[in-house]
Amino acid sequence: MTPSETPPTYLSRRLRFSSAHRYHHPDLSDEENRQVFGACNNPYGHGHNYELEVTVTGQVDPVTGMVMNLVDLDRILQTEIVKRFDHRFINHEVEGFERTVPTTENLAIAIWRLLEDKLPEHCELHRVRLYEDPDLYVDCYGERR
Amino acid sequence: MTPSETPPTYLSRRLRFSSAHRYHHPDLSDEENRQVFGACNNPYGHGHNYELEVTVTGQVDPVTGMVMNLVDLDRILQTEIVKRFDHRFINHEVEGFERTVPTTENLAIAIWRLLEDKLPEHCELHRVRLYEDPDLYVDCYGERR
Amino acid sequence: MTPSETPPTYLSRRLRFSSAHRYHHPDLSDEENRQVFGACNNPYGHGHNYELEVTVTGQVDPVTGMVMNLVDLDRILQTEIVKRFDHRFINHEVEGFERTVPTTENLAIAIWRLLEDKLPEHCELHRVRLYEDPDLYVDCYGERR
Amino acid sequence: MTPSETPPTYLSRRLRFSSAHRYHHPDLSDEENRQVFGACNNPYGHGHNYELEVTVTGQVDPVTGMVMNLVDLDRILQTEIVKRFDHRFINHEVEGFERTVPTTENLAIAIWRLLEDKLPEHCELHRVRLYEDPDLYVDCYGERR
Amino acid sequence: MTPSETPPTYLSRRLRFSSAHRYHHPDLSDEENRQVFGACNNPYGHGHNYELEVTVTGQVDPVTGMVMNLVDLDRILQTEIVKRFDHRFINHEVEGFERTVPTTENLAIAIWRLLEDKLPEHCELHRVRLYEDPDLYVDCYGERR
Amino acid sequence: MTPSETPPTYLSRRLRFSSAHRYHHPDLSDEENRQVFGACNNPYGHGHNYELEVTVTGQVDPVTGMVMNLVDLDRILQTEIVKRFDHRFINHEVEGFERTVPTTENLAIAIWRLLEDKLPEHCELHRVRLYEDPDLYVDCYGERR
Repeated sequence: MTPSETPPTYLSRRLRFSSAHRYHHPDLSDEENRQVFGACNNPYGHGHNYELEVTVTGQVDPVTGMVMNLVDLDRILQTEIVKRFDHRFINHEVEGFERTVPTTENLAIAIWRLLEDKLPEHCELHRVRLYEDPDLYVDCYGERR
Repeated sequence: MTPSETPPTYLSRRLRFSSAHRYHHPDLSDEENRQVFGACNNPYGHGHNYELEVTVTGQVDPVTGMVMNLVDLDRILQTEIVKRFDHRFINHEVEGFERTVPTTENLAIAIWRLLEDKLPEHCELHRVRLYEDPDLYVDCYGERR
Repeated sequence: MTPSETPPTYLSRRLRFSSAHRYHHPDLSDEENRQVFGACNNPYGHGHNYELEVTVTGQVDPVTGMVMNLVDLDRILQTEIVKRFDHRFINHEVEGFERTVPTTENLAIAIWRLLEDKLPEHCELHRVRLYEDPDLYVDCYGERR
Repeated sequence: MTPSETPPTYLSRRLRFSSAHRYHHPDLSDEENRQVFGACNNPYGHGHNYELEVTVTGQVDPVTGMVMNLVDLDRILQTEIVKRFDHRFINHEVEGFERTVPTTENLAIAIWRLLEDKLPEHCELHRVRLYEDPDLYVDCYGERR
Repeated sequence: MTPSETPPTYLSRRLRFSSAHRYHHPDLSDEENRQVFGACNNPYGHGHNYELEVTVTGQVDPVTGMVMNLVDLDRILQTEIVKRFDHRFINHEVEGFERTVPTTENLAIAIWRLLEDKLPEHCELHRVRLYEDPDLYVDCYGERR
Repeated sequence: MTPSETPPTYLSRRLRFSSAHRYHHPDLSDEENRQVFGACNNPYGHGHNYELEVTVTGQVDPVTGMVMNLVDLDRILQTEIVKRFDHRFINHEVEGFERTVPTTENLAIAIWRLLEDKLPEHCELHRVRLYEDPDLYVDCYGERR
């Protein structure tokens, strides 16, 4: 079996981190912030157990049977994502969120950008899916869709 | 950050409704209805806890960080879907199912049609996913796929 | 290893059935029924995917390592519960609910009574847990608690 | 059917709230706080999607078939719990946590105390179960166990 | 309603099987096998509860309201997949895995190939998704993506 | 707040391990083994993703707010359970299962015995719950119930 004989596959890994955040934009007045963001504008912040699903795609290696070794993928996700976001107050402690509201949309885009050039050459990032809770999630596919 | 600098994102919202239904088509004989639909043809009907996932897509607003305000999306989903289907016997109480069998497929298409022109201009409906139970779901993307 | 050397264990089996029902009691006026039961009083009924967890307890057999053979337990649950409730409109089709409102409480009690004397001699029914949906369930332990 | 003829049942309701918190006790030095609480001592705090399961027990009413009307239970849970904890930073915004570390244990005890005398006379609080995340939860049964 | 009037839909069915496996390739030395596969190279093997999601797509039949009758789909999945993989040690008992490492990627490709020409003419296989556990899954869309 | 002022709480921790096993007892003939254990008697074995819930109980420490520090509990569970069972074929590789069938019942009892005297003095093991899959689990409370 050679690589060209097998269809590409998409490998998805789920992980978790817990963070606090506040929805507030400095260009809006206090009144506007409350109107747009409601309870999420609470100055002390609130928090979530985020669940992140990262999908990488590529040819399956004919010997190992893998798109990418999970040990390597897990190490990248620990270093780039978990260490940065877990047990943090995102507005105060994560670079890039000084003037960007940490909505699920903006977090998914930030995670895409943190990961897109960290994968090995033979595979590529396909999708970042971030759950704020089981009933709300955002997908980012980069610029390709 | 301007909108054109960020990739599009896909925002998915999950909600629930509980309905009764019966699989039966008036153009089939009683015998044919039983053969095609089995236990689902039971004249008294049966029911499900449906779970609906609605995905909208668009550019993230550079100030609010949102594809669409969740408060608005939730209001549309309550008005168009939950009020219409929740705690209803679909065949008897939901318009459009007089001669259409309320399969998961037909329900997903009906929900697509109810929602596709209700979203604000800057975003569009991407997918309707309807779970009849955790082991069976149907996706509808409109005509685009 | 003899039975007396091991602690008792509790074996729980989860299964599903889908039914329609209506909350309505003939001794209440229409107005009272609507007040007490709200949307659940809708005359056409609505439905749920019920999840049932049945727990049996006893000594573990020193040879088979089992409280009770799952094949036997599954057969009892199919015969007594699934055949009776699945794809049924409970008020109209299940004996005993002519004048009993099919609340989750009453369903759990009914299931307890259907199962309590059907188990083999060496084990006993410990608990019936019935989920109407993931956010609402009722436990019945018979008269013992 | 009279009440005395039916076994007691236990009705459990699940709900959610999202909060931020920090593990820190003023009687410990900074060094001790870091040693005992690790990443949870982060001064900016972090957060969770809490899931709460509240169980009430009593006789089933022979007419309504209910231990307690869910509409009433939901109203109590909204007023006493969700309004107090949801979208809050617990250490700063919830009374009683000025000098009490908001561990899952202490939160479960606080919720027990908030609810134990709020139920109607014919039923009683049986258990408070609080999930900090799907892999960690605490049960409190009051003083009775 | 004629088929051309409705958008295509995608029907997904979830099922389960439990298998044992070992990650080991005969072209690698013992040392290389241990390095690449870690604990998964354990000679006795280990196992998983796999969850498989199979998606078929097509036009909804205007009478039955179905892409494909679930009874037929379930029979195909039982015959082709469950009988072959469930309660098996994949390396020793499933044809095609003598020299192919049973990674989730290779299992998803094998399942795609087993199913792609088994569906009725009016619908086609869209996706095979295989979960090794809730935090790891692989998608295969055949050659089309 | 002193310990005696707070009710006892029950802290539950969930973790996972993946193992292979075979149901077979040397005192039964091959025919008897097949009859009692069915597909689980397959000589090559099969496997599961086990989920284990361990519950410890005690007074909440008035300073730390904890029944037991999770870091300590996690270390005990890693050392005693995960290292012993994860990625193992239980019949061949775990001591004590040479002549004991690795049913969920026997595994739960074995895990109880491995943990009951490993906890710190101020708390005690309350329950071991082991899921073989989401639809089957066994509880062991030691000899106390």
